[in-house]
Amino acid sequence: MQTVRATYEIETALDVETVAATIANEQSSGTFVKVARETAELRERYAARVAGIDELEPSGLPPLPGASGDWAHARRARVMVDFPLHNMGPSIPNLLAAVAGNLFDLREVGALRLVDLDLPQAFAERYPGPQFGVRGTRELTGRPSGALLGTIVKPSIGLSVADLADLVGELAEAGIDFIKDDELNGNPPDAPLAARVAAVMPVLKASADRHGRMPMYAFNITDDISRLEANHDLVRDAGGTAVMVCVATLGLAGVEHLRRRCELPIHGHRTMFGAFSRSPQLGIDFLAFQKLARLCGVDHLHTNGIHNKFYESDAQVLRSIAAVRTPLFGGYETLPVLSSGQSAALAHETYAAVGTTDILVMAGGGIHGHPMGSAAGVRSMREAWDAAVAGEPLHDRAAKVPELAAALDLFAGRPPGAAQS
Amino acid sequence: MQTVRATYEIETALDVETVAATIANEQSSGTFVKVARETAELRERYAARVAGIDELEPSGLPPLPGASGDWAHARRARVMVDFPLHNMGPSIPNLLAAVAGNLFDLREVGALRLVDLDLPQAFAERYPGPQFGVRGTRELTGRPSGALLGTIVKPSIGLSVADLADLVGELAEAGIDFIKDDELNGNPPDAPLAARVAAVMPVLKASADRHGRMPMYAFNITDDISRLEANHDLVRDAGGTAVMVCVATLGLAGVEHLRRRCELPIHGHRTMFGAFSRSPQLGIDFLAFQKLARLCGVDHLHTNGIHNKFYESDAQVLRSIAAVRTPLFGGYETLPVLSSGQSAALAHETYAAVGTTDILVMAGGGIHGHPMGSAAGVRSMREAWDAAVAGEPLHDRAAKVPELAAALDLFAGRPPGAAQS
Repeated sequence: MQTVRATYEIETALDVETVAATIANEQSSGTFVKVARETAELRERYAARVAGIDELEPSGLPPLPGASGDWAHARRARVMVDFPLHNMGPSIPNLLAAVAGNLFDLREVGALRLVDLDLPQAFAERYPGPQFGVRGTRELTGRPSGALLGTIVKPSIGLSVADLADLVGELAEAGIDFIKDDELNGNPPDAPLAARVAAVMPVLKASADRHGRMPMYAFNITDDISRLEANHDLVRDAGGTAVMVCVATLGLAGVEHLRRRCELPIHGHRTMFGAFSRSPQLGIDFLAFQKLARLCGVDHLHTNGIHNKFYESDAQVLRSIAAVRTPLFGGYETLPVLSSGQSAALAHETYAAVGTTDILVMAGGGIHGHPMGSAAGVRSMREAWDAAVAGEPLHDRAAKVPELAAALDLFAGRPPGAAQS
Repeated sequence: MQTVRATYEIETALDVETVAATIANEQSSGTFVKVARETAELRERYAARVAGIDELEPSGLPPLPGASGDWAHARRARVMVDFPLHNMGPSIPNLLAAVAGNLFDLREVGALRLVDLDLPQAFAERYPGPQFGVRGTRELTGRPSGALLGTIVKPSIGLSVADLADLVGELAEAGIDFIKDDELNGNPPDAPLAARVAAVMPVLKASADRHGRMPMYAFNITDDISRLEANHDLVRDAGGTAVMVCVATLGLAGVEHLRRRCELPIHGHRTMFGAFSRSPQLGIDFLAFQKLARLCGVDHLHTNGIHNKFYESDAQVLRSIAAVRTPLFGGYETLPVLSSGQSAALAHETYAAVGTTDILVMAGGGIHGHPMGSAAGVRSMREAWDAAVAGEPLHDRAAKVPELAAALDLFAGRPPGAAQS
């Protein structure tokens, strides 16, 4: 029998074994009151089963509201539950109802977090996943090796399309690999997607004609689902090479729907993910989320970068990057996107920590805030990464490259998040 | 200028006014590093603005991970921020990126919750909302007055379609108004939607022929978005009168997409909502969520009922019911669904608290767990509600109605959640 294994971290003032059984029961065939037609055969075939319980140190945190029992005796545990696949079939929305449905609401727990999912092969058969991944992105950007370097258009919102075209031209000339719209910049009336595409694509093409390679521009096509197809076609017809969507605001099912007829890499932004992940006591961990996002077809997925301006520790960020790089069903290759607070100053430390250049490093402020301008910002990043991979100390390279020296003057040694994106 | 007002509850160890400005800045035109092309005119037109700050008592809770500053000095506040509508246009996915995007991740806050949204008229123009609401549901069920009474098929998963047909027949004969699939029961291979529809509809129609009214059965059609249309059509073509979707697992955008071509009432289940709402320090409050769900077109929306088995207090539940009943843009009539732990024992208390019968009260265990069977469970609920509305004490009615007496024996006076659904 194929099963889905869901791993939770729970904390409870009740008996851990009983609560684990309640979780399995609540989310499969069980009801609390004995009801008619609930036979032993039915339970045998449809019950979810507790596959393991590993005791953890208590968190020391107060419980979430409504938790039963005396919290002074709280116990924390990692609980593995196996759900029969035939309870839900290989359907992500229906999977979520089982593994992440009403569980969060149970009084029996004062904390419950879905930390991982192990899915059976049937999900790979239903969901083809990323079409382009790392290799496809390298091909489309003409950057066969080295870290892929990108930026977010800033200001986030309000740039005129003429200014946008100028900025893109400057970045393309500077040899950037990737540019994206901000997640705030979907289809605002003053710079609608159609106008952005019309302004940006000729500039990119002109640059491609001169240099033989065209940066990938991920147009933010996030919108109502009925508009995604037309938005995608607009980008494709203009010769664009990527679309971006906000995975959490659109919904995983929305991303999957786009993927079915998408002909371009999907750049997956994770904005709003924090709403169900920042509390260690609740929600869904990135480890589980990224697997679902990859199944739904994202070619790129934001992981944050080290020393970022947001709440995550470097250890968490590195774990996220490693998770996205871990094959799923032997494939589902998705490019991790390191963003927020990134700059040339972090290249060596990042490379030492991730051990690969199969990443997309995005800098907003780290490029646009460069004192010599955006093009100098790009050069500073490229030189820093080149030095990191070559094993050349950052300051040795900076001594030869004024743009890098200027970037280090501004960004190095500043507190985490100082080079804001 | 049309604006969206987002109301947050935040807690921070930094200066509240500065953090409020950071929130407005981060989610509109601002960047932390001064960048080229960010003119005063641009900021004037695109900046979000702090519209008010009301200090609140500190929560006494430790901060979420990664919060800056010395938490001993934490201050809590309600912060209102106005976003120009022209930053996002009336698009729910793009709205969410602005009002609920990266904010949850900011180090500047140790708690941040989106508690309410006030949306401009443009959203009403784009999103038509519920098609049936309370009145349409009353018409379709032939129940012009009194509380609508419903149940969830139990066991949640694993019932054969033959047993399902039996159960539905029993419930229909007992005069139930509404039946729904469990949220776990989407399209499992052993009882796929098509087989459930084929088994249930003839039973409902036979009952309608005898009694002149047909209970509404909300088939759970939740699945990948590309399957929703066929699922809906299957139900409609068989003469079904409702479909159910899990709003949070499908995503608001998925619900909105279904609404565009839906010809039946949409029963909106809120499973997984707890993942971003149970922590008082994080996520999105039901007040904001229900507005978006109604814009997306749900005709019914789960609010839980009092004394339910989940974490919410009765005060929270009553606030949720009131929120769903509050007109939005003067309309967007959605029927609140009171579920979980409901039974005949709660009719008087519920009626006294909500002051209306424009609700759908759903009992699982409270009906299927009735000692005289499901039909007796339905009768006990109907009699209890009839007595409540007539101002007749519960125990007076129970003295005349054995099914109600039996229900009270089993369910009354038990701790919250004892009559589990």
